[in-house]
Amino acid sequence: MTGFGLERLSLNQATVKYLGLADAVALCVRHDIPAIGLWRDRVAEAGLSSAVAAVRGAGLHVSSLCRGGFFTAGDAEGRAAARADNVAAVREAAALGADALVLVCGGLVPGSRNLGLARRMVADAIGELVPFAQQLGVRLGIEALHPMFCADRCVIASLGEAVDLALGFPPDAVGVVVDTYHVWWDARLAAEMARVAGRIVSYQVCDWVLPLPADILLGRGHLGDGVIDFGPISAAVAAAGYQGYVEVEIFNAGIWDAPPDQTAAVVRERFAAALLRGSKAGTGGGQAGPFGR
Amino acid sequence: MTGFGLERLSLNQATVKYLGLADAVALCVRHDIPAIGLWRDRVAEAGLSSAVAAVRGAGLHVSSLCRGGFFTAGDAEGRAAARADNVAAVREAAALGADALVLVCGGLVPGSRNLGLARRMVADAIGELVPFAQQLGVRLGIEALHPMFCADRCVIASLGEAVDLALGFPPDAVGVVVDTYHVWWDARLAAEMARVAGRIVSYQVCDWVLPLPADILLGRGHLGDGVIDFGPISAAVAAAGYQGYVEVEIFNAGIWDAPPDQTAAVVRERFAAALLRGSKAGTGGGQAGPFGR
Repeated sequence: MTGFGLERLSLNQATVKYLGLADAVALCVRHDIPAIGLWRDRVAEAGLSSAVAAVRGAGLHVSSLCRGGFFTAGDAEGRAAARADNVAAVREAAALGADALVLVCGGLVPGSRNLGLARRMVADAIGELVPFAQQLGVRLGIEALHPMFCADRCVIASLGEAVDLALGFPPDAVGVVVDTYHVWWDARLAAEMARVAGRIVSYQVCDWVLPLPADILLGRGHLGDGVIDFGPISAAVAAAGYQGYVEVEIFNAGIWDAPPDQTAAVVRERFAAALLRGSKAGTGGGQAGPFGR
Repeated sequence: MTGFGLERLSLNQATVKYLGLADAVALCVRHDIPAIGLWRDRVAEAGLSSAVAAVRGAGLHVSSLCRGGFFTAGDAEGRAAARADNVAAVREAAALGADALVLVCGGLVPGSRNLGLARRMVADAIGELVPFAQQLGVRLGIEALHPMFCADRCVIASLGEAVDLALGFPPDAVGVVVDTYHVWWDARLAAEMARVAGRIVSYQVCDWVLPLPADILLGRGHLGDGVIDFGPISAAVAAAGYQGYVEVEIFNAGIWDAPPDQTAAVVRERFAAALLRGSKAGTGGGQAGPFGR
């Protein structure tokens, strides 16, 4: 049976939004979760060297650092600030030994409807960042966001676009992030992953729940609570040669309000149900959720 | 200067949701709008023969009938009902002389997460409908809906998918609908339209406004009130040989509450600003909206 074992589980810190870095690290240790995805605001709050010491001391692997990007400022000052911020993010990712620095590339340029312009600015900004990332041994992960965020968060709106962009850069420097929430709907998903084989640098999972809440950023749920068939997507990720951790990253107001230990336990349980068994989870058998028991 | 002239404007009835068919027809006549996109519930309310008489008497062209589809029922009874309903829709489209019967194909099969299954069911159902549509001279228009509706309304989530599907059927029977709200974000849009040249059967326009409202079906606005660059999309539609009307179809609670004569006047004015001038509207110059005057 194919699938991802629990030894490849990573908890993205955003799933337990209200925990500081030390508490999130301790939570992973308590629940035998071997890796963590970190967010820069929490790293900054802890202090970079303390954060490095905390994850190393706990024996945790850092599967990703979230996030760089937001390259589409409308003026030179804004772009210079974005560049400086991304350089800092690369430094932090290097210090933490993160497998990838996740890039959320930015929406339309303020005051412009020109998608092509914004996309060129993203490509140019990544190109400027690549030599420094290579120097520090950090892989940049271009994340395609769901098209509903195209205007205001990320003009890279499908995996195919992220792949086109990544393939223009050296493989040691740039890859793509596959996040099920953003790309599950795409009929070309498996083909795009095959095209970018060897260059998936992060695999993030959460479910798409219905109905979407008023804040569409938060329409995510525990694996099994929504409509995503994780089996075929995970199989394509594996077929594309992905060897890294699988990060559970859930933005959901209800989950944020739940006790973190409960959340971690559910994350483990659902991960095993949806990913360990491969595509069987896709039939809706054996896990909670809309089509469950 | 390229662009679509006001002689190609069509008002989709959904833009003035609270008007019955006769009132919507009269509104088009008062505002010198030469075509109308009809909805089946309003046609049924008026009675088919009265509806035919109303549009013919007014000299209006019927640019589309909305809608058939919803092919993904989970049981044989549901699929038989969908088939009967689509047969009725084809008959109505033929009687009205509509340029296209718009198909919204349906979401995931209830109780299933299997996207591939739903997509095969859509293809099979369209295939079953094709001979009857050909017999009556009706063109079916496969509409790609925005990926945010993939789970619950339409598994055909990008224009490329609609094109793949359409190209498997005879050109006189099946084409695609291009609706800016659903596809504006797609980096492959122009290429997909080129691939389906001669088979775009309806072009529907409205803007994508930010932030999305709680009901994401209603996040649409008058042309110019949002972020869509209508110039390049319209140019690609024209380059693909589209000769038909351009339907303004806006689902927006505020616009539904506005006086219909005001809505029709704004529709005309914005159409001229965004489409008559071609891509100039894309710079944000000269029309109202977030980047406007």
